[in-house]
Amino acid sequence: MKTCIAATAHTRFGKLEEGIGDLMARCYQDLLRDASLDIGDIDASYIANFSSHFSSQCHLSALLSSGLHSRHESTRVETACASGGTALKQASIAIASGLYDVIAVVGVEKMTIRPTEETTSILSYAGSEIERRHGITFPGLFALMARRHFHDYGTSETDLAKIAVKNHKNALSNPNAHFHKSITDDDVLGSRIIASPLKLLDCAPISDGAAAVLLCNENAARRLTDIPVYMSGIAQETDYLGLDEREALTTMPAVVNASTKAFNASGVTPRDVDVAELHDCFTIAELIEIEDVGFCSKGAGKELIAEGATNLDGEIPINPSGGLKARGHPVGATGVAQVAEIVKQLRGEADRRQVTDAEIGLCCNVGGSGGTAVVSIFSR
Amino acid sequence: MKTCIAATAHTRFGKLEEGIGDLMARCYQDLLRDASLDIGDIDASYIANFSSHFSSQCHLSALLSSGLHSRHESTRVETACASGGTALKQASIAIASGLYDVIAVVGVEKMTIRPTEETTSILSYAGSEIERRHGITFPGLFALMARRHFHDYGTSETDLAKIAVKNHKNALSNPNAHFHKSITDDDVLGSRIIASPLKLLDCAPISDGAAAVLLCNENAARRLTDIPVYMSGIAQETDYLGLDEREALTTMPAVVNASTKAFNASGVTPRDVDVAELHDCFTIAELIEIEDVGFCSKGAGKELIAEGATNLDGEIPINPSGGLKARGHPVGATGVAQVAEIVKQLRGEADRRQVTDAEIGLCCNVGGSGGTAVVSIFSR
Repeated sequence: MKTCIAATAHTRFGKLEEGIGDLMARCYQDLLRDASLDIGDIDASYIANFSSHFSSQCHLSALLSSGLHSRHESTRVETACASGGTALKQASIAIASGLYDVIAVVGVEKMTIRPTEETTSILSYAGSEIERRHGITFPGLFALMARRHFHDYGTSETDLAKIAVKNHKNALSNPNAHFHKSITDDDVLGSRIIASPLKLLDCAPISDGAAAVLLCNENAARRLTDIPVYMSGIAQETDYLGLDEREALTTMPAVVNASTKAFNASGVTPRDVDVAELHDCFTIAELIEIEDVGFCSKGAGKELIAEGATNLDGEIPINPSGGLKARGHPVGATGVAQVAEIVKQLRGEADRRQVTDAEIGLCCNVGGSGGTAVVSIFSR
Repeated sequence: MKTCIAATAHTRFGKLEEGIGDLMARCYQDLLRDASLDIGDIDASYIANFSSHFSSQCHLSALLSSGLHSRHESTRVETACASGGTALKQASIAIASGLYDVIAVVGVEKMTIRPTEETTSILSYAGSEIERRHGITFPGLFALMARRHFHDYGTSETDLAKIAVKNHKNALSNPNAHFHKSITDDDVLGSRIIASPLKLLDCAPISDGAAAVLLCNENAARRLTDIPVYMSGIAQETDYLGLDEREALTTMPAVVNASTKAFNASGVTPRDVDVAELHDCFTIAELIEIEDVGFCSKGAGKELIAEGATNLDGEIPINPSGGLKARGHPVGATGVAQVAEIVKQLRGEADRRQVTDAEIGLCCNVGGSGGTAVVSIFSR
C-alpha cells in the first residue's frame, strides 16, 4: 500500500503574535481547507514539537482538541530538531498498519518568547549532559564539525558563506520565509562571530511557526487529491547523543544510514533526486548532509556549491524554500515544512522558486548534532 | 496478527540516585535480560517521558542509544501522564504495520530533582493556560471533580480514603513500590489538606522510576516467551485540555470512549475483567475511572469500594501494584508500569499480591485531568 501526501499547510515563519495553541490550530485548519476536509475526516494526528520550555505548555494533543473544538486522537512526538521527520515516520507507520486511512501531521514551535540567551540554553537540552557541563552550545558543536571539515577537506568559510547566500536568495521567492533579504558572501564573512568559524549569517534564526501535511493511503488519495505525491521511502536513525561519542566530526552516521535505507526502500539513487530540502541549522550542516546523503563524495561538497549545482537552476537544487537558514527554524515545524516544500515542488506549485521538472524529491531532517536523522523520499 | 507482551522490567519507584539517562538505560537492560535478548534483536523503541523540565534533557531517543552503547531507532512520545499508554499504543501500531516484529517501550521520569513547589508548577504545564492563569494546580482540578461527585452522588471523603488505604495495603507486597507503609482511614482523613476535599494521602507522590515492556507479533512471541500475554484491545482518546471545556466534572469522556473502543476490539466486557490498574493520581480519579470504565454505573463506585470488591480478594481487584498512590507516579513510567503489573498478574507471577485466576486484565492511563486516556486490555 503506497503512502501519499494529499495536502499541505504552512504559516509564515518568523516572530508571530499567536501563542502555540492558536498557531497550531490555525495551521491545522489551513490543512483541512487545503484538503477540503473536516476534522471528523481525519483519523488521528501527530504533533511534532521540540520543547515545552518556550511556552510552558505540554500535552499539546489535548490542546489541539481544544483549538479545533473537536475531540480528536493525537500524539506528540519529540526527537529534538528532527521531531517533524519523526512525526512523519510515525504517521507513515500508522498508514502502513491499515488501522488508519488519513493522518495529519502538524509541527509547531513558538520560540520568540524568551530572551535569546535563555532560548540558546533551552536548545542545549537537546545535547548531552557532558556538552552542557562544558558550556558547548549547538553553534559550538557545529563549529567543531566545521573546523574539522576545513582541516580534512580544505573547505573554507567562503564555501559555507555561499550556502547562506543561496538560501537567502531562494527565500526571496517564498512568501512564508522568515527572511526576505538578499545577502552576499561578504555579508556572511563580515557578520559577527558566534562560534568560530561560524558567524551570525551561518546560523538559522530563532523562529515561530507551524507546518502541516496530510498523509493517506492510495484509496483515500484518489478521493482527496488530483495530484498525489507518493512517499516512496522513509527511514529514521538514532545515533549517540553526544558529538564526542561519534567516530568522526565530519559525518553524521544517522544521516548516512537513514539515506541508505530510504533510497533502498524507494528504489532510486541520489543521482535521481531532482530537489532536496536539507537541514541547514548551520551552513556546515547543509554541506555535511550534501555529502552524507550521497549527492557527492565526502569532501566534494564545496565543489558542488562552487559550481552552482545546488542553486535553484543547478543539477541538484537544495533548499528551494530558503532552508532553515532563511525560511526559518521553528524547531518542531521544520521537518514538516521540508515535506510541505517538496510536495509543492513535485506538484509544480512552487511559483517563482519552482525547480523545473521536479519528479523526485528528498527531505533530510536532523535532530541535535546528528543524534537523530529522518530521510524521506517523494515522487509524483 | 495478535500483539503480545513477552517481557517486562520495573525499577524501584521512589527517590532514586541515578540521572534520567542511567535510569532509562538500566531499566532497558533489565528488559533485555528478562527477554534474553540483545539490543540488536529489538527493531525499535518508544520512550514515554512527560517533561524535560525536571532533568533539562530532551532528545531522550539519542540518550537511549548512548546509554545502551548501541545505535538504536527510538522515538519519544508525550501526552502528559498518559505518555506511557501512548507509547504502548504507538508500539502496537508499529507491530500491526508488519514493519516491526519486536518493539520495546520504556517509560521514565526523574522528578525528585526540583523543590516540590517547582515540580507542582511543572506538572501544571499539562493543564490549560486558563487553569494556570487562575492558579489551579492538578490537586485543585481533581478537588473540583471530587466536590461535584460528592454533591451529585453522595460520595464522601471516607469513601476516597478507603481507596488510599487499599492501595497502600497492596503496595506492601510490591517490592518496587515507592511506599511500604500501612495507613488507615483516619490517617488519610487526618492528613493535611492539599486542595479540599483532597488531603495529602489522597494524592500520588512525586517519584523517580522507569518501567518497560516488550511487544511483539505472535511469531516472535513463540520464540521469546513460554507464557505470552496478548493485548486484545487498545484505544487512545484525546479530550479537550481544560476541565472547564468539558460537559461534566464527574466523568472523563476520554476514559469512557477509550474503554468502549478497547472492549469492542477485545470482545470482552467490564464484567469479564479479573484485575485492573487504574490511574489513581488522586483517589477521586480511581473512583471516577471505576465508573467510567464500566465496572459499575455512575455514582455506584463508592458501594463497590465499601463492599471490598476492589480489594485484592474482591470481585474486581483494582491496583494490586499499589497504584499511583503507593507504587508511585514517575509520570512517563506510570502507564508502562501498569502494563508490567497486569502482565505479571496474568502470568501468575505477582507473588503475594497475586489475584487468583486472573485471566483478563485492564489498564487505564490518564493524562492531565482527562485530556488523554489510553485503555488497554490483556488476556493470557
